[in-house]
Amino acid sequence: MIKRIGVVGGGQLGRMLGLAGLPLGLQFRFWDPSPQAPAGAIGEMFQADFYDISAAGKFADGLDAITYEFENVSTETLKQLQSLAPCRPGAFSLSTSQDRLVEKTFFQDNGVEIAPWRAIESEDELRLAFEEFGPCIVKTRTLGYDGKGQVRVAAASDCAAAWAELGSQPIIVEKQVAFSRELSLVAVRGVDGDLRTWPLVENEHRGGILHKTIAPAPGVSPALQEKADAILRATMEALDHVGVLTIEFFEVDGRLLANEMAPRVHNSGHWTIEGAVTSQFENHVRAVAGLPLGFTEPRFSSVMINCIGAMPPADKVVRLGGTHFHSYAKSSRPGRKMGHITVCDEMPGDSHAGDFVERVQAVEDLAISAAGQVAHV
Amino acid sequence: MIKRIGVVGGGQLGRMLGLAGLPLGLQFRFWDPSPQAPAGAIGEMFQADFYDISAAGKFADGLDAITYEFENVSTETLKQLQSLAPCRPGAFSLSTSQDRLVEKTFFQDNGVEIAPWRAIESEDELRLAFEEFGPCIVKTRTLGYDGKGQVRVAAASDCAAAWAELGSQPIIVEKQVAFSRELSLVAVRGVDGDLRTWPLVENEHRGGILHKTIAPAPGVSPALQEKADAILRATMEALDHVGVLTIEFFEVDGRLLANEMAPRVHNSGHWTIEGAVTSQFENHVRAVAGLPLGFTEPRFSSVMINCIGAMPPADKVVRLGGTHFHSYAKSSRPGRKMGHITVCDEMPGDSHAGDFVERVQAVEDLAISAAGQVAHV
Repeated sequence: MIKRIGVVGGGQLGRMLGLAGLPLGLQFRFWDPSPQAPAGAIGEMFQADFYDISAAGKFADGLDAITYEFENVSTETLKQLQSLAPCRPGAFSLSTSQDRLVEKTFFQDNGVEIAPWRAIESEDELRLAFEEFGPCIVKTRTLGYDGKGQVRVAAASDCAAAWAELGSQPIIVEKQVAFSRELSLVAVRGVDGDLRTWPLVENEHRGGILHKTIAPAPGVSPALQEKADAILRATMEALDHVGVLTIEFFEVDGRLLANEMAPRVHNSGHWTIEGAVTSQFENHVRAVAGLPLGFTEPRFSSVMINCIGAMPPADKVVRLGGTHFHSYAKSSRPGRKMGHITVCDEMPGDSHAGDFVERVQAVEDLAISAAGQVAHV
Repeated sequence: MIKRIGVVGGGQLGRMLGLAGLPLGLQFRFWDPSPQAPAGAIGEMFQADFYDISAAGKFADGLDAITYEFENVSTETLKQLQSLAPCRPGAFSLSTSQDRLVEKTFFQDNGVEIAPWRAIESEDELRLAFEEFGPCIVKTRTLGYDGKGQVRVAAASDCAAAWAELGSQPIIVEKQVAFSRELSLVAVRGVDGDLRTWPLVENEHRGGILHKTIAPAPGVSPALQEKADAILRATMEALDHVGVLTIEFFEVDGRLLANEMAPRVHNSGHWTIEGAVTSQFENHVRAVAGLPLGFTEPRFSSVMINCIGAMPPADKVVRLGGTHFHSYAKSSRPGRKMGHITVCDEMPGDSHAGDFVERVQAVEDLAISAAGQVAHV
C-alpha cells in the first residue's frame, strides 16, 4: 500500500497536493532547490538542484511512489527516480511536454489539431514562415512558462528583433490564430486506465499570466466537451499517463486547437478545490497512490482569480462571503503567483450572499490593486 | 496582523484547524505531550505536559494568538498563556465547560433548560436522588469524554456499585431523560461579536462514542433552529466567547435540553469541511485571527461517519464516490478516533453517483467492520 509520496517540486502545486493528500493518510517529501518552498508547511523538504541526478537515491529512499509538480526538471533525473520507485506520471509524459517541437509532433501524430507551426533555424526561415503564416509567435522550444520565452511577430519588420532575442536557442514559430477564447481541460487517469475529465473552463490572461478561470466555461456544447474529452483520452492513452494532465486550447470557430499540455495539476484547475466533487489535487494524489478516482462533476459555478505579486488583504476578501482564500505563503515579488481566490456561486438566489458577478468583480479589483502596488514599488 | 497561531492540543482537531488555516496564510505551533500527535504533519510541534505552566513562556514566544482544541488542559496554564498573547476563546470558556457542576450552574444562570441534576457527596445522597429522579446517570464533574466517567443507575440496587466506581471523585447525578434524539449546534463568534450558527445536526452514538452525524438534522422546524441559535447566542455572549463553541442537546417532546458544551470545534461539526460554505475549522481560525466570519449555510446534505479503532481501507471507501476520507494518521487502537468519512449528496438525482442512502450505509458497514477487527485482535 502506498503511504509515502515524493514530489519533485515544492511550489504551490506541491503544497496543494499535500493539503489534499494528508486526509487520505499519505505523507509527502518534496524535492526543491529552495528551503523556503511553499510545500514545506505540509511535508518533509529535500533540498537539491533539479538537475542533480546524484541526489535521486537519497530522495527516493523510503518512498512508495514519486510524482512531479513542475516540468522544468531533467528527464534524466526522472528516469533515475523511475528506476527506484513507481513514477506517476512517467518520464515519457515529461519529455513529451518539455519541448514544444516534440509536443507538437506528438499532437499531430495522435490526430490532435494544432495551429500551423514550424521549427526554424535562421532569420531567413522566420521571414519565410511569416510570409506564409502572417502574424505569428516565436517561442523557445524549452523552458517557457507564463508568457516567458515568447515574442510576437506582427509585421515582417519584427523578424530581426525576434530573431535577435530568441534565435540563440532552439525555437519554433507558430501562426497566430484568431481565437475567440482560451479554454482548458484538466483530466486524470488512474493506474487502472480509468479516465475522468472536469468540465472545460475559460481562461483569461493578463501580461501573459493566467488571471482568471471561469468554471465551467459558459456556452460549451456537449459536442465540444466530448471533442475535448476525446483529445485528452487520446493523449493520455498514448502517453500511458497516470495522474492529472491539462491541455490548453484555442477555440476557433467552434473548433479546438491544442496550444500546449502540462503533465500535472494546473492553475486552471484550482477552482476544483471547492467547485468540484473531487479536486484535481485529490484525484492526482489518488492516481499516484493507486486509489480509485473521484467524481469530477462541478458542485456549482466558480471563478478563480490569480493573485500576482501580492495577496490582497485576507480580511477584505473573506468579508465578501463565498470567497475562498488560498495563500501560498510566498514572499512578495512582481509577477510571482502568490495565491488565488475562488469565488463560488454556492448559494444562488440567496440575497445575503450578494450577487455572484459583483463578488467576482470585487475580488478581481482587490487582486489587481494588490498586484499593482507591488509592481510600482 | 495575526500570522502565527498557537494551538494547545495537537490531536485531529488541531490537524484540521491547521489544514483550514494554511490557505489563509497562517502558521501553526501545537502544544502536545506526544511527539506523534496528528497535527505534527502541518505545523511545528511543542512537546510539553498540559499541566506544565513553566512551558507557557516558551510556547507563546513569537505567537500572535493562542487557541485550544482540547479542554482537559489546566485553566492555570491557559491563564498564563492569556497574559502572553490573546487567547481565543479565553480561560472563562474553558473553566466553565471543564466542570459539570460549573457548567450546569452556568446554563441555569443563563436561562438554558437542562435535565434535573444534583451534586452528591455520599451514597445516601445518590439514593435520595434516585428516589426523586428515577433512572439517572452518575457523572464525574471533570475529565469525562466519549462516555468515560459515567455510570447509569437503572434501579435503586445499582446505587452501591455506581458509588463504589465513581464516589471517590467529585460527582453529579442527572435524571435520565427520555429524549427522542441527540442534536447538536456548532456556532462561531468573531472578535467583533458577529455570531453564526451552522444548522442543527442529529447525532447517533455507539458505545458512548459519536458514530454518525446527519447534517442538517431531518425534520427541524425553523422555530427549533431559532431556539437553539438563541441558546448559543446567550451562552457565547455570557462567556464573551471568541471562536467555535458547541452544545449537545437532548430533544424531548420538541424541547431542547442542553446536555453539555465544548468550547471548541467539535466532532459533530466535521461534516462542515465539505458540507458547508465555510467549515467550523476555517471559521474558528478566522475568529482567532480576527478575520471576518464566513457563511455557515449547508451546501448539500451530508452524513459523517466516525472511524473508531481503525480506518476502513481507503480504496473501498473512495470507490463508492462522493465520499470524503479523513485519516488522522494515528496508530490503531480500540476505541480511538482514527478518522472520519463524510458522504455528501453532492449530485442529487445523478444516477452514476448512486443512491445517497445506500452510499451512507456502505460507508457505515465499512467503518463498523474495520472497528470490529481491531476490537477483536
